[in-house]
Amino acid sequence: MIERVAVIGLGLLGGSVGLAVRADAPEIVTTGYDADEATRARATERGLVGTVHNDIAEAVRDADLVLLCVPVGAMKSVAAKIDPHLRGDAIVSDVGSSKQSVLRDLTEALPGRTIIPAHPVAGTEQSGADAGFAELFHGRWCIVTPPEGAAPEALAALRIFWQRLGATVEIMDAEHHDLVLAVTSHIPHLIAYTIVGTASDMEEVTRSEVIKYSAGGFRDFTRIAASDPTMWRDVFLHNRDAVLEMLGRFTEDLTAMQRAIRSGDGETLHNMFSRTRAIRRQVIEQGQDDAAPDFGRKH
Amino acid sequence: MIERVAVIGLGLLGGSVGLAVRADAPEIVTTGYDADEATRARATERGLVGTVHNDIAEAVRDADLVLLCVPVGAMKSVAAKIDPHLRGDAIVSDVGSSKQSVLRDLTEALPGRTIIPAHPVAGTEQSGADAGFAELFHGRWCIVTPPEGAAPEALAALRIFWQRLGATVEIMDAEHHDLVLAVTSHIPHLIAYTIVGTASDMEEVTRSEVIKYSAGGFRDFTRIAASDPTMWRDVFLHNRDAVLEMLGRFTEDLTAMQRAIRSGDGETLHNMFSRTRAIRRQVIEQGQDDAAPDFGRKH
Ligand SMILES: NC(=O)c1ccc[n+]([C@@H]2O[C@H](COP(=O)([O-])OP(=O)(O)OC[C@H]3O[C@@H](n4cnc5c(N)ncnc54)[C@H](OP(=O)(O)O)[C@@H]3O)[C@@H](O)[C@H]2O)c1
Ligand SMILES: NC(=O)c1ccc[n+]([C@@H]2O[C@H](COP(=O)([O-])OP(=O)(O)OC[C@H]3O[C@@H](n4cnc5c(N)ncnc54)[C@H](OP(=O)(O)O)[C@@H]3O)[C@@H](O)[C@H]2O)c1
Repeated sequence: MIERVAVIGLGLLGGSVGLAVRADAPEIVTTGYDADEATRARATERGLVGTVHNDIAEAVRDADLVLLCVPVGAMKSVAAKIDPHLRGDAIVSDVGSSKQSVLRDLTEALPGRTIIPAHPVAGTEQSGADAGFAELFHGRWCIVTPPEGAAPEALAALRIFWQRLGATVEIMDAEHHDLVLAVTSHIPHLIAYTIVGTASDMEEVTRSEVIKYSAGGFRDFTRIAASDPTMWRDVFLHNRDAVLEMLGRFTEDLTAMQRAIRSGDGETLHNMFSRTRAIRRQVIEQGQDDAAPDFGRKH
Repeated sequence: MIERVAVIGLGLLGGSVGLAVRADAPEIVTTGYDADEATRARATERGLVGTVHNDIAEAVRDADLVLLCVPVGAMKSVAAKIDPHLRGDAIVSDVGSSKQSVLRDLTEALPGRTIIPAHPVAGTEQSGADAGFAELFHGRWCIVTPPEGAAPEALAALRIFWQRLGATVEIMDAEHHDLVLAVTSHIPHLIAYTIVGTASDMEEVTRSEVIKYSAGGFRDFTRIAASDPTMWRDVFLHNRDAVLEMLGRFTEDLTAMQRAIRSGDGETLHNMFSRTRAIRRQVIEQGQDDAAPDFGRKH
């Protein structure tokens, strides 16, 4: 059973874990650390964890679960820093959005340690110490990607931890995780960043026009493209192969659409546009989105 | 002053116009017609307009404003049908998402009539007689694209009409409209339809995985890709040139992203991802979206 959790990185994910533990598993003691002094100060004010330490060694010393909630590019250096200070029986896990790279980095930096990477598929476009909230994981999935031969008790303890925060745990190998998330998360973000960039570079259409008329669809892309640049840079650098593979398929499909438009092939377009409605229905049925039209935005 | 409005097509847009008139301009008399009998029945039940007619001629006979709220591919045939039955002083307008094609089609089908195309930039992913609601146009823009030499009184009357429904009117030429909307609406929809299609065609990743883990970004694309297939087929066929032009630019920018990922160029990625946040801020400041994280979805 997990009794003391150390949260490293007190942004959206780390802060939400801390607040969720307080709300849903209040007997668990939480400590935390963030590289940024201002973030530590704000985390203390908001009470994101029980104790915010100025020294990473202090933060992890007594923990039986250490959760790395930093960008995936920072996992290795953070792991190296905590290694000398960990309890012998500590489980090291994380919330990073790519899993093969994290598994490799933690295995290298933490030889002999119990490492069980994980990824709660939950987030918003906001980041930093003010972004976290206790309900982030309610009704969401947490994908756990244990290395071969991972200790079953450690895996069981981690599963119970995430379940208590409201998530449903799924076990997957890291490679498959990276492929699935490339298509359900990484490519959508890349596309959104790109189209928002394309729109803001146009000469014939002013920036103010793009913003004014964004309610036609563009505004949804601006939301996704407002996500944290450091986090996303790291995701693309660390899940490169799966992202490039999926991007290749997307581009092929887009070319087929382009061809249908150019040749005036309405039937092909209508067929393609009809297939996608069923997926939306299932997303809503499975509780992964609101059914309210337009996300129930105010009008 | 507009006193009697005929709404042709009683789906999301037509139904919303009818309900908005009743809420915001209740002294205006509304009539309506839809090609589909079930839609007419439901429109009568919901009271989308004052009188739903089974005969399009009856619906338009007394109207001083006729608003075509049908897919842009149906504009020409509907216009030809109403022409013999219009009052001499009637203004014919529409809500179609492309404007050059509508202007051309209405001019051909309605020789000598007062034609002032328009496009309220407001919508949701839902369609049909149940989708409309009175507040759809509140705080949104309505782009009016009058042909050269349009009667100023007619233009003024149409402007006041849309203002009363809560929209702000902007005048633009049809060509510029089509370019602006290609980037803020048509390309985002095309991309969303494509990625949802790509995801559902994968062999290595099951459909159920795609749905389960959609909260990582994909679900927003499924919403947009749930929009009406007929409406969108028509948009792409009728705004072909602007869509292909913008698609070309998007593809170039996506290729640059791809290259940066392939070569591990984190700086380029970080720069691109940083530029796009400012646009999000402006979209929110200008009231075109909610500031609530994750659209304030329930967790
Ligand atoms: N956002 C999402 O939607 C989402 C969803 C699922 C998983 N994730 C994953 O969750 C992790 C954290 O993302 P987030 O959204 O919580 O980002 P965030 O809000 O920016 O939080 C990350 C925090 O980690 C701190 N940090 C960075 N490097 C550090 C280091 N070397 N040592 C200690 N602290 C460090 C950052 O401090 P500074 O302010 O100094 O940078 C920041 O406070 C990432 O791996 C991401 O892939 C994110
Ligand atoms: N949806 C948006 O977000 C949005 C936003 C701005 C503008 N627009 C534009 O608004 C217009 C209507 O779109 P919508 O979203 O309201 O679609 P919708 O909900 O599908 O409504 C269109 C209605 O027009 C009817 N119709 C089709 N052909 C007709 C004909 N020849 N004669 C009479 N009625 C006919 C349809 O009947 P059936 O049921 O028989 O097809 C349907 O009831 C389109 O031009 C679209 O480009 C849409």
